[in-house]
Amino acid sequence: MSACNGDDPRLSHIKNKIRVVPDFPKPGIMFQDITTLLLDPKAFKDTVDLFVERYKNMNISVVAGIEARGFIFGPPIALAIGAKFIPLRKPRKLPGEVISEEYVLEYGSDRLEMHVGAVELGERALVVDDLVATGGTLCAAINLLERAGAEVVECACVIELPDLKGRDRLKGKPLYILMEAH
Amino acid sequence: MSACNGDDPRLSHIKNKIRVVPDFPKPGIMFQDITTLLLDPKAFKDTVDLFVERYKNMNISVVAGIEARGFIFGPPIALAIGAKFIPLRKPRKLPGEVISEEYVLEYGSDRLEMHVGAVELGERALVVDDLVATGGTLCAAINLLERAGAEVVECACVIELPDLKGRDRLKGKPLYILMEAH
Repeated sequence: MSACNGDDPRLSHIKNKIRVVPDFPKPGIMFQDITTLLLDPKAFKDTVDLFVERYKNMNISVVAGIEARGFIFGPPIALAIGAKFIPLRKPRKLPGEVISEEYVLEYGSDRLEMHVGAVELGERALVVDDLVATGGTLCAAINLLERAGAEVVECACVIELPDLKGRDRLKGKPLYILMEAH
Repeated sequence: MSACNGDDPRLSHIKNKIRVVPDFPKPGIMFQDITTLLLDPKAFKDTVDLFVERYKNMNISVVAGIEARGFIFGPPIALAIGAKFIPLRKPRKLPGEVISEEYVLEYGSDRLEMHVGAVELGERALVVDDLVATGGTLCAAINLLERAGAEVVECACVIELPDLKGRDRLKGKPLYILMEAH
């Protein structure tokens, strides 16, 4: 599997800053809360740096972030590697012409939308979110970017819930994570 | 009024990248679309840099971003000035204990929530969003931060719609913008 080098000294500090909230948003779900990571400027910077170090020399010109927590990690990565940032949004949030993809969530179903014209043919794209669970949202993001003509190089998430096997739903695209949670 | 120096050569390029979408989300609204700005890596970086240059020496330890577009601009500013980032979210999105504030939008009403424990007493805070319209959301954000014991130093937005007089609803807090739209 593709994960950050577990020996990196920054990782244990990052892991310690993730809060687990039981029974959110419904009973039985152990919610991985990244907002506590954002409260520690060094841990937040280290998180972004670990992604930037991986992607800075991979000729990526598009970073697509999934609403809403992908908007927190995606833009700093995009700015650092000189890529454009594309927000992939919930229905009826983007004002221009969109393409959209349905997906099934761990708790419900929804649709993801992307502006037409956001990518050019053949652009190399990275998809960013905070967490991969069932992989449904990431799969929808990959489909949107590929329909628009981009090449999806990889998906990048802070946390993976490996028990849900979301990694297997990414259409063969690599997934890079900083940590697993169970 | 508090606005970016209009002579800054980066500003005209930034302004040119904002797309105006008529009649979104409802007839009569001229929607200021910042997603086209994000597609230009230099214009996006210049936007963040203009804020960072203003705030880097103002002893700000908290950047609070308003869901969802405040999540795009807030984190890069927070990372650059070494502040924590606090997401202020729509109802039932934050997993921990929250405080909340009602507000009236230009088109509807809603509630903004903040995690309890996100700020410490006396911390100096900056509120970030993409746009100020009626000022209702920013006012709710200021109230949340003040209830939690923070001192709100300023609100920062890319765009102001001055005709809606949102600036007057910010409880006397300064508002800093990069441009006006009419």
